[in-house]
Amino acid sequence: MAHLTDIEIAQANDINHIKNIAKKLDISEDDLDLYGKYKAKLPLHLIDENKIKTNNLVLVTAITPTPAGEGKTTVSIGLTEGLNKVGKQATVVLREPSLGPVFGIKGGAAGGGYSQVVPMEDINLHFTGDFNAVEKANNLLSALIDNNIQSKTQNLNIDPRTILWKRVIDMNDRALRQITIGLGGTANGIPREDGFNITPASEVMAILCMATDFEDLKKRLGDIFIGFTFDRKPIFARDLKAENAMAILLKEAIKPNLVQTLEENPAIIHGGPFANIAQGTNTIIATKMGLSLSNYVVTEAGFGADLGAEKFLNIKSAYAGLNPKCVVLVATVRALRHHGGAQKEDYNTPNLDAVKDGFKNLEKHIENIRKYNIEPVVAINAFVSDSEKEIDYIKTTCESLGVQAVLSEGWEKGGEGTKDLANAVINVVENKATQYKPLYDWKSPVKEKIETIAKEIYGADGVIYDKKAELNLRRIDRLGFNDFAICMAKTQKSFSDDDKLIGRPTGFKVTVREIEIAAGAQFIIPILGKMMRMPGLPAIPASEGMTIDKEGVISGLS
Amino acid sequence: MAHLTDIEIAQANDINHIKNIAKKLDISEDDLDLYGKYKAKLPLHLIDENKIKTNNLVLVTAITPTPAGEGKTTVSIGLTEGLNKVGKQATVVLREPSLGPVFGIKGGAAGGGYSQVVPMEDINLHFTGDFNAVEKANNLLSALIDNNIQSKTQNLNIDPRTILWKRVIDMNDRALRQITIGLGGTANGIPREDGFNITPASEVMAILCMATDFEDLKKRLGDIFIGFTFDRKPIFARDLKAENAMAILLKEAIKPNLVQTLEENPAIIHGGPFANIAQGTNTIIATKMGLSLSNYVVTEAGFGADLGAEKFLNIKSAYAGLNPKCVVLVATVRALRHHGGAQKEDYNTPNLDAVKDGFKNLEKHIENIRKYNIEPVVAINAFVSDSEKEIDYIKTTCESLGVQAVLSEGWEKGGEGTKDLANAVINVVENKATQYKPLYDWKSPVKEKIETIAKEIYGADGVIYDKKAELNLRRIDRLGFNDFAICMAKTQKSFSDDDKLIGRPTGFKVTVREIEIAAGAQFIIPILGKMMRMPGLPAIPASEGMTIDKEGVISGLS
Repeated sequence: MAHLTDIEIAQANDINHIKNIAKKLDISEDDLDLYGKYKAKLPLHLIDENKIKTNNLVLVTAITPTPAGEGKTTVSIGLTEGLNKVGKQATVVLREPSLGPVFGIKGGAAGGGYSQVVPMEDINLHFTGDFNAVEKANNLLSALIDNNIQSKTQNLNIDPRTILWKRVIDMNDRALRQITIGLGGTANGIPREDGFNITPASEVMAILCMATDFEDLKKRLGDIFIGFTFDRKPIFARDLKAENAMAILLKEAIKPNLVQTLEENPAIIHGGPFANIAQGTNTIIATKMGLSLSNYVVTEAGFGADLGAEKFLNIKSAYAGLNPKCVVLVATVRALRHHGGAQKEDYNTPNLDAVKDGFKNLEKHIENIRKYNIEPVVAINAFVSDSEKEIDYIKTTCESLGVQAVLSEGWEKGGEGTKDLANAVINVVENKATQYKPLYDWKSPVKEKIETIAKEIYGADGVIYDKKAELNLRRIDRLGFNDFAICMAKTQKSFSDDDKLIGRPTGFKVTVREIEIAAGAQFIIPILGKMMRMPGLPAIPASEGMTIDKEGVISGLS
Repeated sequence: MAHLTDIEIAQANDINHIKNIAKKLDISEDDLDLYGKYKAKLPLHLIDENKIKTNNLVLVTAITPTPAGEGKTTVSIGLTEGLNKVGKQATVVLREPSLGPVFGIKGGAAGGGYSQVVPMEDINLHFTGDFNAVEKANNLLSALIDNNIQSKTQNLNIDPRTILWKRVIDMNDRALRQITIGLGGTANGIPREDGFNITPASEVMAILCMATDFEDLKKRLGDIFIGFTFDRKPIFARDLKAENAMAILLKEAIKPNLVQTLEENPAIIHGGPFANIAQGTNTIIATKMGLSLSNYVVTEAGFGADLGAEKFLNIKSAYAGLNPKCVVLVATVRALRHHGGAQKEDYNTPNLDAVKDGFKNLEKHIENIRKYNIEPVVAINAFVSDSEKEIDYIKTTCESLGVQAVLSEGWEKGGEGTKDLANAVINVVENKATQYKPLYDWKSPVKEKIETIAKEIYGADGVIYDKKAELNLRRIDRLGFNDFAICMAKTQKSFSDDDKLIGRPTGFKVTVREIEIAAGAQFIIPILGKMMRMPGLPAIPASEGMTIDKEGVISGLS
């Protein structure tokens, strides 16, 4: 039983030099760019398209989560330990944590208990500087835009009222959501409205995640759509000659980061989180790197399978030609109680009736995964408050659907607690995997793509477009962006766009309030409901409970 | 003759693994935290107070510079090569470049020609992430402030109109100088005025530069003065329980960075630039690290000796108990022509009369250095446009003042071109050095300290205090901050506060417009004239001329 905090477990762990982890993947020491003794960047020449085709990709996603999360990262890490325990050579490929949640409510994203990646403090803090590089590239473009509208000689005639490009900061900072800049007289620029998004929500992060190589990255940076001139001509980052300088800032950030699990298995961590407001999966380059180096790759996509997995499958895998052979659906008994109507204060109290009722959420996610021609395995992420009856119900009911549900005890036991899960996954990969298929063709009409996701995945009856969204659609058409992928911005709390519709809602429509464009990432981003791209801090921020002593030992980081 | 650009010279150089540079300093490989193969962080336990006392510290400063700069960094690196060439074990200790100038006009700060530190691209870009860490620590405090004034339960009653703490970004971005934040309704905070300074101007950077160890850093972070409550009580960062989380963000940034010169001598680079708006010297920890590891340490302080050197001597050395044994005053013939009245278009045309007239600027700096009980050496940073007559005039006139002036040809020839300079420095260190003395006692009254600098160093007749400055002085007194050091914010273009008064102005007074407080750094900051803490980009930003190819090779970075 884990009585220690996550950080205490991580600190008590005897960590191996990263060169020894690299050795397991046949990476020579010379190919490692070390960042201290326990982190390294990997060069892109290690990517091997032939191995990508033959090795096995496993995607970990979840049912519709409670605010605490279902433990996808923990299960992904635990499953990787388990796969290695049962004799497979497996690497976990994860997303990088954002500093915002670290100091806010949710904490970092390095797993938990005995299923963690280490060094967890470094991973949860600045890591190897990738987020900073994304932030600087994003904000350099902002500075170049404002410098241009201020310029007398180089002016591109950009209409400041049409600028869609925002600044970013990797911080939960609600006061920066909506601001006015350029105040204070002629020396300080042209006053205009602006705002900061959190860094993982930057299009530069999306571009980093979608880029297949450095040239592709640079081209996409140049393709960023900024706004219009006063005579309604579109302006792109390349018009400001920004793409090279932005790419220069990202020259190290494009390389995936190698760390290790507590059981000294390889972990590749690269790219941004937040599958509700971004694509929320690690980079294509990182996933390909994992598959180039390892027979099994376990990766994750953010929030419920209606968000992260949908994007992983329809955007990332479709674009990059990946073929996930098994999807692990993480569920907790606690979340099923929630979907069955249990109140927050009763989440940790056994309630078989609530679990029975809540199962419908899991069932819909199982149905959804099968629409992609992939077989799911259900991982029940074990909690001490789980009752045997609840677990049995879930297992039996899954079995009746032809799905294996396995208790995942990685949090408490590491790889020893996930061997069953590992075997269930291997069974699907080796015996049931075929070629997955995406749900829609990028070349379909925009409304058709949106409706496919809404109806097939969310279970909606239809899609309502606000007037602004209709105007946005016309603009997308005029700009020639119809063939882009759909990257939905939707609440993670419900299949629908309404937080309160838990379980498996039916008889609802979703409303597209507006539609943003990320032309460099090649995303059309329908905004469903009130999604904010800059979180706030809670009344008592997590930062208040953190300490660091003179030896540099941190506590209170989670 | 160097026909290649700085970056081409740096790229053509065969760079050594940083572990081999560390070996020269008797640092074990285990003590290195590598950042790639050519950068490393050094642990603080290598600092040895006994060696700091016996080894030799040489400060490089300059005459009042032209906008292109006098080449202090180039001379510092060149001198270090020269010292090693003539048999001394020498390390150069420099400041880290800011990204703002890299994309603006001035370029990076890694030296030039055959006197550079490498890898110059990495040093000029994100380096080891120190600036990012400073930025995040600064902006976490901002987010905590705005979160507190928004909070219903934890509210400290901070009056938003009194908040002095600003956000920072390491970018030249004039549109962020003056902004309003918290707009858009109750969910987005309390609207108030704010602004961004450039990251090196952050008090967190000043604290990093002044901290003697990690505990001191944390204490100083807690001591940051933010503003007042509605009932006029002062509020500090510790009232927001911010200092631990901020220190956690800085846990790696406090460690100095080891790189190398083109001739494979050790270079330690740590802490922020901008001696006009900040203290503008490297960190105390970095200087002490250099002195712990090396018999000679060559370090620099920003802009003219009236700014960087004044602060290095009266603030940094006084606080840290350092004893600079020689000051190298860098001059260029070009700048002396400027101070003698030559126009910009004629800077590169020999003009003995102008040099003769401009010499008075150098003479005043020589006099100033001697006030600290330190003997200067003048380094004439050679340019192809220098005439023999001009050089001779400078040498002879310096000699008549008892000062050795030496041609420094490090830019063209590396260490081969600075052996004379090295020998001149060694002569002062070994034969003329005593104990330096600061110009004022920190415990003197504030106005007395300001007037000492203005009269003794600037040559002013007196100091005028604007009404706002007088009010600020009363506040400083009320808050008990009288014993802090004075960190002047003044133009680098003149001894006075008026850009146009070149040469050696007399018969002028300086005006203190307002006085800022950096309570954690223990600085009182008189603002002379119109100093801005956020630069802008030029009409054609340097970013436009930069390229990076698919192999990651950069051009256009300087």
